[in-house]
Amino acid sequence: MHNESTSAPMNFELLGRSSSTEARIGKLTTAHSVIETPVFMPVGTLACVKSLTSRDLEDLGAKIILNNAYHLMLRPGAEEVKRYGGLQKFMAYNGSILTDSGGFQVFSLEGLRKVTDEGVKFQSHIDGTYHDLTPESLVQVQENLGSDIAMVLDECPSGGAERDVVQKSMARTTAWAKRCIDARNRPETAWFGIVQGGIFEDLRHEHAQAICGLPFDGYAIGGVSVGEKPEDIERIVRHTAPLLPQERPRYLMGVGTPADLVRGVAAGVDMFDCVMPTRNARNGQLFTHTGKINIKNAHFRDQEVPLDAACTCYTCQTFTRAYLRHLFVNRELTFYRLATIHNLHFYLELMREMRQAIAEDSFNEKEFLSHIGE
Amino acid sequence: MHNESTSAPMNFELLGRSSSTEARIGKLTTAHSVIETPVFMPVGTLACVKSLTSRDLEDLGAKIILNNAYHLMLRPGAEEVKRYGGLQKFMAYNGSILTDSGGFQVFSLEGLRKVTDEGVKFQSHIDGTYHDLTPESLVQVQENLGSDIAMVLDECPSGGAERDVVQKSMARTTAWAKRCIDARNRPETAWFGIVQGGIFEDLRHEHAQAICGLPFDGYAIGGVSVGEKPEDIERIVRHTAPLLPQERPRYLMGVGTPADLVRGVAAGVDMFDCVMPTRNARNGQLFTHTGKINIKNAHFRDQEVPLDAACTCYTCQTFTRAYLRHLFVNRELTFYRLATIHNLHFYLELMREMRQAIAEDSFNEKEFLSHIGE
Repeated sequence: MHNESTSAPMNFELLGRSSSTEARIGKLTTAHSVIETPVFMPVGTLACVKSLTSRDLEDLGAKIILNNAYHLMLRPGAEEVKRYGGLQKFMAYNGSILTDSGGFQVFSLEGLRKVTDEGVKFQSHIDGTYHDLTPESLVQVQENLGSDIAMVLDECPSGGAERDVVQKSMARTTAWAKRCIDARNRPETAWFGIVQGGIFEDLRHEHAQAICGLPFDGYAIGGVSVGEKPEDIERIVRHTAPLLPQERPRYLMGVGTPADLVRGVAAGVDMFDCVMPTRNARNGQLFTHTGKINIKNAHFRDQEVPLDAACTCYTCQTFTRAYLRHLFVNRELTFYRLATIHNLHFYLELMREMRQAIAEDSFNEKEFLSHIGE
Repeated sequence: MHNESTSAPMNFELLGRSSSTEARIGKLTTAHSVIETPVFMPVGTLACVKSLTSRDLEDLGAKIILNNAYHLMLRPGAEEVKRYGGLQKFMAYNGSILTDSGGFQVFSLEGLRKVTDEGVKFQSHIDGTYHDLTPESLVQVQENLGSDIAMVLDECPSGGAERDVVQKSMARTTAWAKRCIDARNRPETAWFGIVQGGIFEDLRHEHAQAICGLPFDGYAIGGVSVGEKPEDIERIVRHTAPLLPQERPRYLMGVGTPADLVRGVAAGVDMFDCVMPTRNARNGQLFTHTGKINIKNAHFRDQEVPLDAACTCYTCQTFTRAYLRHLFVNRELTFYRLATIHNLHFYLELMREMRQAIAEDSFNEKEFLSHIGE
């Protein structure tokens, strides 16, 4: 019954599988766009991918982006966004929008928040006002935002958390997931559950069973890339992804480097998001097919060549490393956009190439790692 | 002899005159573009109009922009720009570039500079190193930059300067102008002389005679908008513009508000530059046909309408006041570009409308002031 009603807002079709890995390609259809998976979702926390416009996103071929419900709840407010006609209309973007609940951001507010089984009480980082966040209130918030895909409120322990702390978070996350399912009202919003379990394989297994037993439209791997070691990330993703239902999209939250994307795809993940390409861009760290570079480095002053000779983005087709360095050292605002366009293009192009390889059943993890300079 | 050699880099053709005012339209041709005058030149101090790319400038129809020789001399260095193939190639811009000498910026370095008849000795605001600026060295700098139009080094007293101070500046500026003419080497760079004289009409007359007797490709009104009263600006521009040769372009440096542009055009000025549209944009001050607004104002939160209903720029065609305010209060980088696009479009569109009116001989100063919300 739940399953039927939640199938409506979103359709996911598996189109092919790699014969040598867990990698798969599919088609995700929401009310706003058709998305080929595996897909990387640029992060646009406040209904804006920093430095870009919706036209830039369309030029980049980004059919889905991520917004943050917690941040938007505080500014401009979810009711306001509803009045504006929803997130897409507000930001003039014609793709799909997945909203993270922002639970992760709230739990990061050390000293400003109190977590109980009921939910989270916290103080706004903007004006110090008190707010109650419950699984139910976050359903309301994300429905007001008009999200195509919404995430349940979960409790995400830090990467170094002990087994018993992780177990308590799992129990709470499961209880909250059920309350979230009962609170849903808006037929156009799809909901994803989140699997916790830290770095413990048996706990991941246990929690995948609990969450995947609930009628969600998709399933996410949470609690990854929150401070644990790189080898633990890789091990847990490879272990957990195949535990999620074949016929639903699998989303690895907050991950990661280009190499993480390749490994995640090989493990059978369909969706990714991370601030890395956009945040690194603003700090002058740019991805190329010969490895990551820091544009501040003095020797780029003499390089009258594109950032990445193999790249077809506007930045690489138009400007030299020397000019980009000049913009960066002078803190010219133009730099942030040009760098963001490049890094996102690098990520989105990598995903396109992996989809192509899976479609041809030639996907090879090691070849892709070498292709991106690893 | 000088006159012939300096005519080559630039051609100016007067195409029409207003019968009721001094307003005129013309066509300015440089090695890089054909520019309809009167024209407003966006300011791109460091080979970049802040927050925009060269593609944005082309979309806005900006056929000529201003760069600053003094700033570029310090970073990345004029020799470097020469090695990069000149400013246009460096910033991937296919329009014309006028370089201000930056004398005004150097004279603003209170305590860090020493002016003599020979030139200016100053300390870099970036790293404290000492530099000598002479009329000759600034010719070399601007020729290295590959400027289409270069400005002589002048001495610009503040708006409140006494008569005798202004007279000393005039004498020095004339002497420097002659040295600049003798130092020229690059046939592709046109040179403009600068008329000083403060707020004293007889001194303006005297200095216009001195400077316009020298074989420059165009003539600028300097020392305006440097701290004097608005009514003095208007009076001096109306007095000085007609003193400059009819057959050469007349450039009013560093001015101004939209109303200043209308008054300047009516006085017979052909070229303008000012940081106002771009700097104000970044501070949230936006020009509209019903007056200037500050987007931070809380009531814009409820305004789901374009910034300026009469505007055809990308920003107004795509986003609401509510969204722009949201971006501004959250310091989203995207805001700066959207606001800059709008304000520059407002300025450039106003110039297009004035050119059209002059062409039809229907140019009316008061009507244009009312049109821009004055």
